[in-house]
Amino acid sequence: MADIWLTSLITKTPQEGFELAIKMARMGVKYTQPSAEVRDRLRDAYANNADSLTAASQVIAVNFQTVAAANNYWK
Amino acid sequence: MADIWLTSLITKTPQEGFELAIKMARMGVKYTQPSAEVRDRLRDAYANNADSLTAASQVIAVNFQTVAAANNYWK
Amino acid sequence: MADIWLTSLITKTPQEGFELAIKMARMGVKYTQPSAEVRDRLRDAYANNADSLTAASQVIAVNFQTVAAANNYWK
Amino acid sequence: MADIWLTSLITKTPQEGFELAIKMARMGVKYTQPSAEVRDRLRDAYANNADSLTAASQVIAVNFQTVAAANNYWK
Amino acid sequence: MADIWLTSLITKTPQEGFELAIKMARMGVKYTQPSAEVRDRLRDAYANNADSLTAASQVIAVNFQTVAAANNYWK
Amino acid sequence: MADIWLTSLITKTPQEGFELAIKMARMGVKYTQPSAEVRDRLRDAYANNADSLTAASQVIAVNFQTVAAANNYWK
Repeated sequence: MADIWLTSLITKTPQEGFELAIKMARMGVKYTQPSAEVRDRLRDAYANNADSLTAASQVIAVNFQTVAAANNYWK
Repeated sequence: MADIWLTSLITKTPQEGFELAIKMARMGVKYTQPSAEVRDRLRDAYANNADSLTAASQVIAVNFQTVAAANNYWK
Repeated sequence: MADIWLTSLITKTPQEGFELAIKMARMGVKYTQPSAEVRDRLRDAYANNADSLTAASQVIAVNFQTVAAANNYWK
Repeated sequence: MADIWLTSLITKTPQEGFELAIKMARMGVKYTQPSAEVRDRLRDAYANNADSLTAASQVIAVNFQTVAAANNYWK
Repeated sequence: MADIWLTSLITKTPQEGFELAIKMARMGVKYTQPSAEVRDRLRDAYANNADSLTAASQVIAVNFQTVAAANNYWK
Repeated sequence: MADIWLTSLITKTPQEGFELAIKMARMGVKYTQPSAEVRDRLRDAYANNADSLTAASQVIAVNFQTVAAANNYWK
């Protein structure tokens, strides 16, 4: 994957950090399934399944721990 | 998502921090499934499934680790 | 939820900290499913399912990490 | 649960710490399902299921993080 | 496994660190299932299953926490 | 379990640390299912299931966090 998408973990606000964590969760999926077409097809199913959404939120939470620590919790 | 919802991880009390962790867990879901109508429909199912509730509690626990560290554990 | 239930993460002993972690795991469920009647009904099922019990123990373990760090591991 | 079972996170060796982490994982289950009879019955099933064993190992791993930090990694 | 594949956790950029985390997640699988033929066969299934992809992203997230800490978050 | 198998978390290289994390993941299973015969039988099934392999990789990742911290990330 030649694209540059992650040059820094530093963000201006906690919310931008949360959104970076979401990006990281999605990139974790993208590296495993590079086809946008397949990912779009799968999205319909899991965006309508409560447990799948909870699992997605968990991955975001783990990534946000990393981003928050990198930013010293924006203190 | 243009709304500002997370400007700080600092809270006055541990309980407010716990409630922020819940908010973060729900926002993790909301970013993935933006439709309030769909989320409400899914809520009925997972709020009546023990394993779904445990999974939700796990996401809260991970987010609370972050919030608690940000607040130096309210010491 | 107006009740005050979490005013401090500090406990006298590791065991009290573990029991606080259990309380936090249960409150994570309670915020998502406020009905005590529903929770009691679900309890029968998941307390008799090994994987559900392991998942519950995992949430406790994550919360205990937070409580233990808050107490500097009771050293 | 009146029994005292966790008075310290400090152990002499990493292995004793690992065994304490196992104890904590089991106590997480025991607080949720206090009946030894039920737990023994469930044990047969999950001790013969690979995914259940992996999940058990995960809870031990999370608890061992806590115990290892408490012991400053036995350095 | 005689091959040397992990000599350092230090990377030049966060993205290289993320890609190392992916490598670590895959090596965790490879140590358990050394047959490339079997892994390739399994890949088709899980790369087309949303929950499997989320689970893969979670393992990457956990490994990235380690790599990011090792690099002091590239600060 | 009388055998001594974990006397130190310190390893010479990150890779040896990763392999120790695998050992810890397996020992977490072994303490729960001591029968080598049963574990071998289960191995066939989960080594051919993608989700089981991902779950195994997750446990390794959690244990590797502990080992890496113990070694100050081999810096």
